[in-house]
Amino acid sequence: MALIGKVLIAQGGGPTAVINQTLAGIVLESRKFGEMIKTYGAIHGVEGIVNEEFLDLTQETSHNLEQVAMTPSSALWSTRVKPDQKYCNEIFKVLRAHDVRYFFYIGGNDSADTVHIVNKAAIMGNYDLRAIHVPKTIDNDLVISDHTPGYGSAARFVAQAFMGINLDVRALSGVYIGVVMGRNAGFLTAASAIAQKYPDDGPHLIYLPEREFHVEKFLTDVKRIYDRYGMCIVAVSEGIRDASGQPVITSLRKDIEVDGHGNVCLSGTGALGDLLTQKVKERLEISRVRSDTFGYLQRSFVGCVSDIDQHEAREVGERSVQLAYWNNASGSLTIHRTGYYSVDYRLAALEEIAAKTRLMPDEFVNNEGNHVTDAFKYYVRPLLGAGLQIPSHLRAPRVPKLLTVE
Amino acid sequence: MALIGKVLIAQGGGPTAVINQTLAGIVLESRKFGEMIKTYGAIHGVEGIVNEEFLDLTQETSHNLEQVAMTPSSALWSTRVKPDQKYCNEIFKVLRAHDVRYFFYIGGNDSADTVHIVNKAAIMGNYDLRAIHVPKTIDNDLVISDHTPGYGSAARFVAQAFMGINLDVRALSGVYIGVVMGRNAGFLTAASAIAQKYPDDGPHLIYLPEREFHVEKFLTDVKRIYDRYGMCIVAVSEGIRDASGQPVITSLRKDIEVDGHGNVCLSGTGALGDLLTQKVKERLEISRVRSDTFGYLQRSFVGCVSDIDQHEAREVGERSVQLAYWNNASGSLTIHRTGYYSVDYRLAALEEIAAKTRLMPDEFVNNEGNHVTDAFKYYVRPLLGAGLQIPSHLRAPRVPKLLTVE
Repeated sequence: MALIGKVLIAQGGGPTAVINQTLAGIVLESRKFGEMIKTYGAIHGVEGIVNEEFLDLTQETSHNLEQVAMTPSSALWSTRVKPDQKYCNEIFKVLRAHDVRYFFYIGGNDSADTVHIVNKAAIMGNYDLRAIHVPKTIDNDLVISDHTPGYGSAARFVAQAFMGINLDVRALSGVYIGVVMGRNAGFLTAASAIAQKYPDDGPHLIYLPEREFHVEKFLTDVKRIYDRYGMCIVAVSEGIRDASGQPVITSLRKDIEVDGHGNVCLSGTGALGDLLTQKVKERLEISRVRSDTFGYLQRSFVGCVSDIDQHEAREVGERSVQLAYWNNASGSLTIHRTGYYSVDYRLAALEEIAAKTRLMPDEFVNNEGNHVTDAFKYYVRPLLGAGLQIPSHLRAPRVPKLLTVE
Repeated sequence: MALIGKVLIAQGGGPTAVINQTLAGIVLESRKFGEMIKTYGAIHGVEGIVNEEFLDLTQETSHNLEQVAMTPSSALWSTRVKPDQKYCNEIFKVLRAHDVRYFFYIGGNDSADTVHIVNKAAIMGNYDLRAIHVPKTIDNDLVISDHTPGYGSAARFVAQAFMGINLDVRALSGVYIGVVMGRNAGFLTAASAIAQKYPDDGPHLIYLPEREFHVEKFLTDVKRIYDRYGMCIVAVSEGIRDASGQPVITSLRKDIEVDGHGNVCLSGTGALGDLLTQKVKERLEISRVRSDTFGYLQRSFVGCVSDIDQHEAREVGERSVQLAYWNNASGSLTIHRTGYYSVDYRLAALEEIAAKTRLMPDEFVNNEGNHVTDAFKYYVRPLLGAGLQIPSHLRAPRVPKLLTVE
């Protein structure tokens, strides 16, 4: 028999374009079960839990939930707090006080870890709890799952951005460096490859955190492409590392911000792009060298979303509630590819997901370590969804010259 | 009677999302008139003309032209060359050699100047020519016209970006600075105001090149907003100037690139955003301060376009051909607002447009010089087109605390 008690939902880590689809999925599905007597939402993730900052989502209209589902970024707001054992005990204390029996935490591998510790605290405290980690991350770096909700929409943004960049740089020529989010995993940067339609389209070079970055090799690569096409478009993960494993941004520059977890702050600054631009200008003597750091635009841009990503984000929310109710289970929801393209969902043990990071597998990266393989393009394309615009070039013939001697 | 001869089209300056609508409009319309015996396209703008690098667009399929029309950035590629009298004489020589009788140059105020000089050369040379400047620029800085093709779509990108930023920054709090294109005119940066739906939505501060930028005033503004909302979202034009009229980017940093026309290179670098970020961190002691420079993403992003902008860009192309044919006229095509929202087109004298820059009128900027007025929002909204997504927040009631004493 299903547990009787309240449902609590929280959202953690960086926002995505479809994270509120998951929120709506959980709220709307939980309303169907009489045992789930109320549905609360914690404001600012685990911070909201320990401070008892809850919204009573039972009183939110279904219609507004559908509107919020279409809105990017965490509607319950988020947090960068990474709870330790003590913090998780606090969480558990609050869950018990409010008679929360179903806990859904939408987040990445850190959030899975939190759910795992809270679940253990509940077991230790002899408190019957269903604790589910519901996946989201634009980084696509959760183990076991084929991919994660949020990735497809961010990947679509990156692909569309590079389609435009191809056209823009071609019109005025030069070298362009686009810096894409991704601390450890290069999946998001790699999605730029979908922008290649015509044989000379960029990105001509793609650098990922999974491979060592050597400035000299980078300069040689850029020169080769530029000499061939008169232009060179580069996609770079913000997290690229040098041979010693240090982020390139710190090896080139010393005054870089470090966050509470000791992570170097990679986003919200144009530093890496500017530094690589400078190297190309100085060493290759190419005059038009430009760089953009995609930054926060790629994460919550309104109006750039994958329909596949939306559907799946909604379903992981729904399925989480169903599995907690019908299977009386705790765990982490995972997505599995069953065809090209179809998926199904399962529940993994929390400890299998918690605090683990998936990197790009070797078969997705080319031998030179400066681009992706067709296997990756085949993998990623369906995730970007339907209706992706395809750029078209003119194909009219050249006119013979009258004045100029060729 | 209409002139008999060839049509030549060129595209100049920075690309836009709809510049190929104008190209398609000219090509398809010119095919209707038997006197326009062939339609050529110059590759890389005026550079293509002097080098006789032409595509015979008469042989391009209408279907592919429609596909290209939907593709952002200049399909004929572009140029930054700003012709002088001698260069314009070269252009005229080529036009005459190829029996070009209709010359359409799609571009901004520099392009209008080129058309003006070429037209005078034709008159001096007793050569019957119809020379039309067809407007485009994301900067919206052409005089006489209510607005320019290309602006609406770029403005839509900026508005959608800030909608997402509002949601993203709210989820994790802090200060955010978005740097938007605009050397002299602030129209594009000002469009960020359309992102404000809820009363506390950003951008809370908007800084334009039309007003002096004072770092101290900026810091006071940011502090006031941050103290009130726990977050502050700022939109800044890349071209903001200090009291001496110098771009802020040069007054803060000395190693800035200067282009062939002596213009400071403002785009393709995160320098201004990084410098303002640093000021806020140091002086206001706010820890989470992030900046994005929208750079080239805002100009040719595939999949972010205003339908109004598309229609008008197509029509200015069509109308240009019609006026050259039916009115036997030369000049610069202008857009005039006739209702809310309807437009019509006229032909202005080339010297009225050439090399002049329109700035934001005073009634569009607030008294403090750190935001826009409702008059501007009323002006800009229709240009962004239909189907602009509207973000939605949760409105569920708070749950009373059980453990915490308030």
